[in-house]
Amino acid sequence: MSSFFSDGGDDGPGSEPGLRERIWRTIFLSDTKSGQIFDVILLILIGASVAIVMLESVETLRSLHGYKFLILEWFFTLIFTVEYGVRLWAVRKKRRYALSFFGIVDLLSILPTYVAIFFVGTQYLMVIRILRLLRMFRVLKMAHHFGQANVLMNALKSSAPKISVFLFFILTLVSIEGTLMYIVEGGSNPGFSSIPQSIYWAIVTVTTVGYGDVAPLTVVGKILSSVIMLSGFAIIAVPAGIVTAEIGRENLALRMDRRKCDQCGWTGHDPAAIYCKHCGCKLHV
Amino acid sequence: MSSFFSDGGDDGPGSEPGLRERIWRTIFLSDTKSGQIFDVILLILIGASVAIVMLESVETLRSLHGYKFLILEWFFTLIFTVEYGVRLWAVRKKRRYALSFFGIVDLLSILPTYVAIFFVGTQYLMVIRILRLLRMFRVLKMAHHFGQANVLMNALKSSAPKISVFLFFILTLVSIEGTLMYIVEGGSNPGFSSIPQSIYWAIVTVTTVGYGDVAPLTVVGKILSSVIMLSGFAIIAVPAGIVTAEIGRENLALRMDRRKCDQCGWTGHDPAAIYCKHCGCKLHV
Amino acid sequence: MSSFFSDGGDDGPGSEPGLRERIWRTIFLSDTKSGQIFDVILLILIGASVAIVMLESVETLRSLHGYKFLILEWFFTLIFTVEYGVRLWAVRKKRRYALSFFGIVDLLSILPTYVAIFFVGTQYLMVIRILRLLRMFRVLKMAHHFGQANVLMNALKSSAPKISVFLFFILTLVSIEGTLMYIVEGGSNPGFSSIPQSIYWAIVTVTTVGYGDVAPLTVVGKILSSVIMLSGFAIIAVPAGIVTAEIGRENLALRMDRRKCDQCGWTGHDPAAIYCKHCGCKLHV
Amino acid sequence: MSSFFSDGGDDGPGSEPGLRERIWRTIFLSDTKSGQIFDVILLILIGASVAIVMLESVETLRSLHGYKFLILEWFFTLIFTVEYGVRLWAVRKKRRYALSFFGIVDLLSILPTYVAIFFVGTQYLMVIRILRLLRMFRVLKMAHHFGQANVLMNALKSSAPKISVFLFFILTLVSIEGTLMYIVEGGSNPGFSSIPQSIYWAIVTVTTVGYGDVAPLTVVGKILSSVIMLSGFAIIAVPAGIVTAEIGRENLALRMDRRKCDQCGWTGHDPAAIYCKHCGCKLHV
Repeated sequence: MSSFFSDGGDDGPGSEPGLRERIWRTIFLSDTKSGQIFDVILLILIGASVAIVMLESVETLRSLHGYKFLILEWFFTLIFTVEYGVRLWAVRKKRRYALSFFGIVDLLSILPTYVAIFFVGTQYLMVIRILRLLRMFRVLKMAHHFGQANVLMNALKSSAPKISVFLFFILTLVSIEGTLMYIVEGGSNPGFSSIPQSIYWAIVTVTTVGYGDVAPLTVVGKILSSVIMLSGFAIIAVPAGIVTAEIGRENLALRMDRRKCDQCGWTGHDPAAIYCKHCGCKLHV
Repeated sequence: MSSFFSDGGDDGPGSEPGLRERIWRTIFLSDTKSGQIFDVILLILIGASVAIVMLESVETLRSLHGYKFLILEWFFTLIFTVEYGVRLWAVRKKRRYALSFFGIVDLLSILPTYVAIFFVGTQYLMVIRILRLLRMFRVLKMAHHFGQANVLMNALKSSAPKISVFLFFILTLVSIEGTLMYIVEGGSNPGFSSIPQSIYWAIVTVTTVGYGDVAPLTVVGKILSSVIMLSGFAIIAVPAGIVTAEIGRENLALRMDRRKCDQCGWTGHDPAAIYCKHCGCKLHV
Repeated sequence: MSSFFSDGGDDGPGSEPGLRERIWRTIFLSDTKSGQIFDVILLILIGASVAIVMLESVETLRSLHGYKFLILEWFFTLIFTVEYGVRLWAVRKKRRYALSFFGIVDLLSILPTYVAIFFVGTQYLMVIRILRLLRMFRVLKMAHHFGQANVLMNALKSSAPKISVFLFFILTLVSIEGTLMYIVEGGSNPGFSSIPQSIYWAIVTVTTVGYGDVAPLTVVGKILSSVIMLSGFAIIAVPAGIVTAEIGRENLALRMDRRKCDQCGWTGHDPAAIYCKHCGCKLHV
Repeated sequence: MSSFFSDGGDDGPGSEPGLRERIWRTIFLSDTKSGQIFDVILLILIGASVAIVMLESVETLRSLHGYKFLILEWFFTLIFTVEYGVRLWAVRKKRRYALSFFGIVDLLSILPTYVAIFFVGTQYLMVIRILRLLRMFRVLKMAHHFGQANVLMNALKSSAPKISVFLFFILTLVSIEGTLMYIVEGGSNPGFSSIPQSIYWAIVTVTTVGYGDVAPLTVVGKILSSVIMLSGFAIIAVPAGIVTAEIGRENLALRMDRRKCDQCGWTGHDPAAIYCKHCGCKLHV
């Protein structure tokens, strides 16, 4: 299970079934009764602590319950600090866990509360705790969903080079479009007061988000915008095409079979096939 | 016809052709003259009653014709109540009908008027009657459209796990993006007054809806928004890719060979296959 | 050439090469020198007349040049009226031309000017003349583009049943979503003053257009909107999936070959293949 | 390497390894130490000069550092002018370089500063320098990314005819939709004051950008808008479908068999093929 979701601490076979081994199994795996209970409690604590951070940011709630929020915040942070310490103690390959995706997230989840003693406002960074909820996939034993997530991940990973090339083109494009709009509208429209501001508008437009906080006012600006929007029409199709083609390939790869008939050389057999569909001979692995 | 659109009451063969049987056939099937007339009248009544509810919500119309709307509302509700009673009486497997999709919709379609006696405003929930119009597909004998709807349904159903994983990632993403924007813009922009409010903005942005009721004002906020929008560009492509791949697979399944091996009964052969891939026997057309 | 773009008047072979025949060939086909000159002049006239109608609608230009616009309008209309008369006279199957797509467009292109004598404002309907520009494809001898347009048309045509089913679901969905938002926001937000108005908002939201003229104000309304937007995320993928699958099928159909090797029964040959790729025997048509 | 990204000056083999040859190799290729250093310095200069132009457009920065910006602008322009001259001198096929994509971009990158002496404001056109950054792909030796970009380019190129046909249909559609909205809303809504203005709205709507600077106000206008938006729903899927199908085909082409018949030289064989489909000879691996 060396997938993206790996804990970086899920290999401990061969160690003696001592206390540390049992605690490791409880914390990192979900294959024991105690492990499952631990995971469920942890998920509830994470969910509650994220909700507290979010609610605390609401002015009216903070002025009413600010003190309670602070206590709860420290309560959750202390629990997660202890949990992080125990994880580090229990796992055998400490460095591998500490540098894994979840190891880093676990650390970043407790730091903001401590940093907030010195720098006001940083406690909201605790929202990063929400990433810990991704562990949920393991807890819920959603092996199937896990497979789905991996298909998605692989498709995105193999799309990545194409999409990064694509994003570079988009950045070049919006820079030029934004500059043109600045030249056209800059003088008369406060929304195009500088090139960076106009590039912001171009990004809002090409991605079809279209807030409307900045919109062209002059006739030439509207014509240019129309050209930009229509060209963006074709552009928005490109990432969809890239990802679709990759997902199709992933799906195909899952179903493909590389066996070839010894007798007639026919390939492209169903993975479930026993006999060659062309000559009726038995197929070998 | 145990498809999604099934009435849960469409199996009555073998029963004596008595009154109940004839009424059942008229109400639940569309294969008799009287059944078709019943369906068309019902669809007109449903359409009219939904239109009445919608028009009643318009202030100017309500103040003018409020009394007439109330009478019509009760008129339609009483008809549909009687119809629901007759359906329950006529069908043999009462529980199966009552718990089917259309059975529940039929019940929910009449409840709001009665509940509105006690709780003002709930009568608008009658709009749920519009779901009864889905029966139209059966009435219009659109067998072909039916097949199309089922292809869509199957594609969506098999996309569901991938899309739910995807939505969970999106929720995690918008939570973090919203929090970052709250930290950046929270102090100076009333549109980012709290984390939940900022998450609302992030959802409006990532889905490319972009109302513009909330928009970044600071330079850092606009840069961060630009990154969010461009990353959302790749993201919006993912569901399209998932659904496309599934529809392609569904279409393929529809075209698959219908030959069945005489010997072992295996199906799903390649159109070019000569021998059964399971037992090696010759296939016949 | 019985494609979508057919003139309904393009079959005249066998008739004597008299005056009517020569005029018919000039007007309806583009295979003679005079026919090409006629088509180019016609396209220029159509473009100019559409531009005049559009410019006339601009208040400042109308007050300055209103009289000239009126004269030009009648000038173009009289030319197109004469052209329509000559077309009707020259073509053999008059009814077929008059009822074809372009025949109807040709008629609708001249009617608004005459109707505008009695009903002010209808002259803008002349913009329908723009449809006549679709003839351009034939003039420019863009046989290749023609094929492309037909692939698109076929893909859209075979997507039509799925997409109409899909639009019906969307209509049902936005009705229910709009009603829910009316119940939630109706009292406090003038943008949700009635159910039809709220359905308009739901359509603006689900299609991701998001004008922002109507936006939720209450907390519950924003939460409900977020759910609607995220669900719309999966929904917007469906038409893309449908059309993509159909275009893929169209492309495949263009390339497929139905030949089967007499010797070994192998199928799936390249349309350009002469010998069977499996056994090396000659292929027959 | 006659791809889209070609410099138009990258063929100099056979020339004597003199000074001009060495300078040519340094400037145009990246296969020597000095060539790589040159490219990295050039990219940094280009990036800095583009940043300067963008920052100069910000009012507050210009009033503070206007003089410094002007000096830097001329500094970069003089460097690039010298570079352009050396490129022209070093390359053998001068005309081919001067008319290549990068040759034209190189020239356009230096012109605006000179032209700005006579025409104020044109200096912002220097942003076109950003296109020179596309050379980065070569510098970073991202052969893989290069291949990805070419797949994208080929897919877009083969999609071009379909997409241009599609854009022509869209233009026809928004013209008619805009006119209808002008007739409906023109009298009461300043946002639909003329047909061109209404066409602008139609483009903003069909592309789902939806600024909201123009939005329907009347009931009929909102109903018509809803129809336009829902029909646009199906339309937006079309380019995605086109590009997806083309990328799929490109990917397929990449995987196609590279075997070549010894006898007749035919390529493009099925990976499962045993005999050449053209001459029937046996194929070798």
